[in-house]
Amino acid sequence: MTADLGARGEARLIALDWGTTSLRAYLLGDAGMVLERRAEPLGILNVIDRDFAGVLASITDRWRGENPELPAIASGMIGSAQGWIEAPYVGVPADLSAVAGGIVMVPGSGLAVVPGVAQRGASPDVMRGEETQIFGALAERPELGRLATLVMPGTHSKWVRVADGGISRFTTYMTGELFAVLRGHSILGRLATGAPPPDGAPSSAFGRGVRHAAGASEGLAALIFSARSGVLVGDLPASESLEYLSGLLIGDEVRAGLAGGERPDAIIGEPSLCVRYAAALAELGVHDVTVLDDAAPAGLWSIASLAIPSLQRGEGSSRRPVSGRAN
Amino acid sequence: MTADLGARGEARLIALDWGTTSLRAYLLGDAGMVLERRAEPLGILNVIDRDFAGVLASITDRWRGENPELPAIASGMIGSAQGWIEAPYVGVPADLSAVAGGIVMVPGSGLAVVPGVAQRGASPDVMRGEETQIFGALAERPELGRLATLVMPGTHSKWVRVADGGISRFTTYMTGELFAVLRGHSILGRLATGAPPPDGAPSSAFGRGVRHAAGASEGLAALIFSARSGVLVGDLPASESLEYLSGLLIGDEVRAGLAGGERPDAIIGEPSLCVRYAAALAELGVHDVTVLDDAAPAGLWSIASLAIPSLQRGEGSSRRPVSGRAN
Repeated sequence: MTADLGARGEARLIALDWGTTSLRAYLLGDAGMVLERRAEPLGILNVIDRDFAGVLASITDRWRGENPELPAIASGMIGSAQGWIEAPYVGVPADLSAVAGGIVMVPGSGLAVVPGVAQRGASPDVMRGEETQIFGALAERPELGRLATLVMPGTHSKWVRVADGGISRFTTYMTGELFAVLRGHSILGRLATGAPPPDGAPSSAFGRGVRHAAGASEGLAALIFSARSGVLVGDLPASESLEYLSGLLIGDEVRAGLAGGERPDAIIGEPSLCVRYAAALAELGVHDVTVLDDAAPAGLWSIASLAIPSLQRGEGSSRRPVSGRAN
Repeated sequence: MTADLGARGEARLIALDWGTTSLRAYLLGDAGMVLERRAEPLGILNVIDRDFAGVLASITDRWRGENPELPAIASGMIGSAQGWIEAPYVGVPADLSAVAGGIVMVPGSGLAVVPGVAQRGASPDVMRGEETQIFGALAERPELGRLATLVMPGTHSKWVRVADGGISRFTTYMTGELFAVLRGHSILGRLATGAPPPDGAPSSAFGRGVRHAAGASEGLAALIFSARSGVLVGDLPASESLEYLSGLLIGDEVRAGLAGGERPDAIIGEPSLCVRYAAALAELGVHDVTVLDDAAPAGLWSIASLAIPSLQRGEGSSRRPVSGRAN
């Protein structure tokens, strides 16, 4: 493939955000422009018999049919010990070139796998997939690269300090998974049977939970019991207890993050979840936070641009190919 | 029945600690002495078709066969809205006579049901069953009644401030249930597949978890992720991650309780769990805490002694029938 034709619409890269439960695939053109996208529930836990090659082929055959040499790159749990091939963690501080330098190729597949990032020492922590979204966010908003705090809501929320274009430190909160297991398997979920799951706009009960968590000192294990006791003493309708619990959990995360000295500049993630985090931050006095969605393809393009020689040909003199995405 | 024979061994009261998952039944003699005990997995959630009368009969028929008029009393979730009959909460401060005054009789069964205790206001909280154990502990250790903090580990741990012989305030921590749902349904449990459940003596990983929680400020949702990230960065063997998680959860509860100004005088509960709490308290510098087990029968006797006239006859001049248990 030669890339120097530069025609808009010509495929340059297959980019995969391949996580635990889902696989999002993008066909990217010049400057990382998204030409096509697909999403399948084929996260690594759902791949039968570990036939990752078969899944990759099924997703990309049509794209590669037109260009068998089209390079492909993947981030996320596909690079974990439970995935296709383990791409060992890169330590913090980790900038774009460090992460690109940790890429591992799956033999015979032409797939480049992005490593995760690990923080060792007194506060060990890990990410795998978020590093790619972060570099995507920095490509879209270069002003965040100098010094910023990014909040990435999700099953395992991350608060990430970015400095000098790299990931300098981060903390993971199991907020999303806590909500899921408490709703699905604890007395708090049984109490709220019949209530709709809180996935729309946050309600007043959500805000009440945020405020209660923000002002509390007794710790999360005590806070969450108030979603039960409030109902039992008649302070809280059972139908609102899950919204209140969502507020408690997100509120405690935001409280802890702010207490740790972070002040979020951007929230990156699934839009309805970002709305909840923005609302919680606003309750605690933090306004005007940028919200970014779907940063993975831009991040995969940034990383691939450093790691895959064919993408560099034809980029001309641009030293920041990704920041040209809006061209 | 006349009780004035006072013969040791004569049955005076059937006492039931009837919770969500289990039913513990005691045949009590003079001064609350335990003559016989039974335990069945017949907590209120396990009673088919809500046939509480049938369960009561199956447990007590032999005891009542000898004395059909034998009074019976029960504490715990049997008195909740999901139980046999609802015994409305008594508000704090709640002393023995207030709780005894809230007893509700199940029509036709001769069963007295003890109410729970509720704390209303800014920190709503509830207990149902623990109030009875507390009065049992005070009967066994009257010196705790003036002013003390009691820690009651369990599915829903309670830290209870006792003053002037009554329950003045309390905080519930969902520590035990959090551990159960995280072990059974989260990534932390999957990571530790094959590891023995931490139900024996606490290990060094438990102590490490306690110390990490005690020194941390990032909140529980972040703390617990270290049980995963520690394994992934090679700091923590996967086989010890549940012990470490147990230490994190109990450590965070103890940290929060101590930070709230409480200093435990006694731990009341299941012995192997009390050992963990005593170890966690010792890690945080609190030693010489009394450990009490199986306080429910003494508490049921105390409450019944106030509420059931037949028990008062024959107690002679003693104004504290329960404190005479060691006679």
